[in-house]
Amino acid sequence: MIHTGFPVSGPTLGEVGEHAVIQSIIDASPSPVNGDDAAVLSPASPNSRVVATTDMLVEGRHFRADVTTPWHLGRKAVVQNFADIEAMGARPIAVLLSLSAPPAMAASVVGEIARGIAHEIDKYAAELVGGDVTAGESLVLSVTAIGSLGGNRPPLTLSGARPGQNLVAHGAIGYSAAGLDLLESGMEIPEKLEPLVLAYQAPVISPSAGVVARSAGASAMTDNSDGLLHDLTAIAENSGVRFDLDPATIAPDDLLLHAAELLGADPWKWVYEGGEDHTLLGTLHGNAPVGFRSIGKVCRPNDAACVTVDGAAPNYSGGWESFA
Amino acid sequence: MIHTGFPVSGPTLGEVGEHAVIQSIIDASPSPVNGDDAAVLSPASPNSRVVATTDMLVEGRHFRADVTTPWHLGRKAVVQNFADIEAMGARPIAVLLSLSAPPAMAASVVGEIARGIAHEIDKYAAELVGGDVTAGESLVLSVTAIGSLGGNRPPLTLSGARPGQNLVAHGAIGYSAAGLDLLESGMEIPEKLEPLVLAYQAPVISPSAGVVARSAGASAMTDNSDGLLHDLTAIAENSGVRFDLDPATIAPDDLLLHAAELLGADPWKWVYEGGEDHTLLGTLHGNAPVGFRSIGKVCRPNDAACVTVDGAAPNYSGGWESFA
Repeated sequence: MIHTGFPVSGPTLGEVGEHAVIQSIIDASPSPVNGDDAAVLSPASPNSRVVATTDMLVEGRHFRADVTTPWHLGRKAVVQNFADIEAMGARPIAVLLSLSAPPAMAASVVGEIARGIAHEIDKYAAELVGGDVTAGESLVLSVTAIGSLGGNRPPLTLSGARPGQNLVAHGAIGYSAAGLDLLESGMEIPEKLEPLVLAYQAPVISPSAGVVARSAGASAMTDNSDGLLHDLTAIAENSGVRFDLDPATIAPDDLLLHAAELLGADPWKWVYEGGEDHTLLGTLHGNAPVGFRSIGKVCRPNDAACVTVDGAAPNYSGGWESFA
Repeated sequence: MIHTGFPVSGPTLGEVGEHAVIQSIIDASPSPVNGDDAAVLSPASPNSRVVATTDMLVEGRHFRADVTTPWHLGRKAVVQNFADIEAMGARPIAVLLSLSAPPAMAASVVGEIARGIAHEIDKYAAELVGGDVTAGESLVLSVTAIGSLGGNRPPLTLSGARPGQNLVAHGAIGYSAAGLDLLESGMEIPEKLEPLVLAYQAPVISPSAGVVARSAGASAMTDNSDGLLHDLTAIAENSGVRFDLDPATIAPDDLLLHAAELLGADPWKWVYEGGEDHTLLGTLHGNAPVGFRSIGKVCRPNDAACVTVDGAAPNYSGGWESFA
């Protein structure tokens, strides 16, 4: 069952007031650490380092009420930040949420966003430790995630890839972009294709996949947020390597082929250019860690491209430009 | 010399593109920690804990182009977050910046915000370690500050005040609200009153004032962000105490009296209800630490009010309501 739309009835944010709005968020994710000027986190384990990242979600730009729900939006805001923490090989432990919304918006929108956030952070035993709530012209969510990088191994960086390693991936590639195209088409979406829609509305990543990859010897990692070619190019440029993809391992599956047929779309475009899957992409010597699969090799750079497919540059580009 | 207004000429954000916008921010505050999926911070000193806080600044709500400049705005975004870190007795070490802006906005606006941010974080030897830049209908800044709480003393909390302690303050009270009223009046502002205007545009707090107070034995602290009565009430309610203010120590000074005369305003309203000074307010047994002054006593609660002046409830309320 596919759900979209924001509630528009019931008391507004302006009617219930700031205190009640904040309380609804805190009730969804209670934490003794929350509520002071700043949150004090417990001392970390020996040698562990703090990892921090932030992402902003803007109404009309990153999401629209007609293709998602507040609950999915709250989940997605957490997942896309936690994917960045996992992509360092670290474990998410805390979240701060800033939220701006029009006073005329239904207060239940924020309540459902808060429930979605709680749903995801519970999976990680993480906590909502602080935030800010304010009025504004449109709904804007800004989430900061804090993680813990245990032990003394280095983090998984964009510059850590080495020729001879395997390129491994965890999770679907292209699903989110296909799901968004289905939602935006306005067509009746077959139930079978629900996984694509859900991948757009609230992608799921496996807690600790990044930690597992680091333990297995991975040295580079990122998540597929702006598109497979775009994000692999970021590693390639920072590491001075090239990726050669094995097309058989990333070929569109039945769901993507089915959606492409319905929409008259090119499913490979979703695979190469679609982002927001937040699939983890890593490199290591040896076999793919549990939950990962090999999708290519790390090679020496050449003049052709940062990312090749069977040795040749693909006819796809992609990537997200914020001010376009 | 009072400056207001945002640049409107030159290339727009849409014209220069996301990459150049991000680069201009990074160039202003370069850090080797910035640029990966998430920032990895160095291991902390023994027993130290991580402290985190976030604040969102929305155009038309928290600031207007006609009463500030992008440079001041960038400074203020940092200061108000660092004040929250200091209010725990901790030291600010890192900042994450999310920024949403219309593509038609002059790119130099973001460049100047970035310079303002750099100006403040340099004072603390802190670093800009990450962020996000995106298009949106209006300018929204979301800053997260991360601090380090060294040693094994407890943090300075809202619940830490005890009857018998002194109430101490660091910095001016009421200046920011007076400065905003002067700016919004549209009058020609006498040069002598510039400190009030600057207190609004970019309040200055002393790096390490919170750390000094903690070392001197302070147990509770907050910053004057929503108004003196409002913020003291937060401590009073959390600690189960009452504050009795000594009016002689917070009486409007010559600058406030001068501004009040010009505007036909009540200067005490600025003192009691004006926020955004980000003055640190703390409690401790013994004398005021260096840079602080005593402004009252911590007393047992009574039925009159959370905050009294010479034993009586003042005829002021105040406080900031986001969705009003």
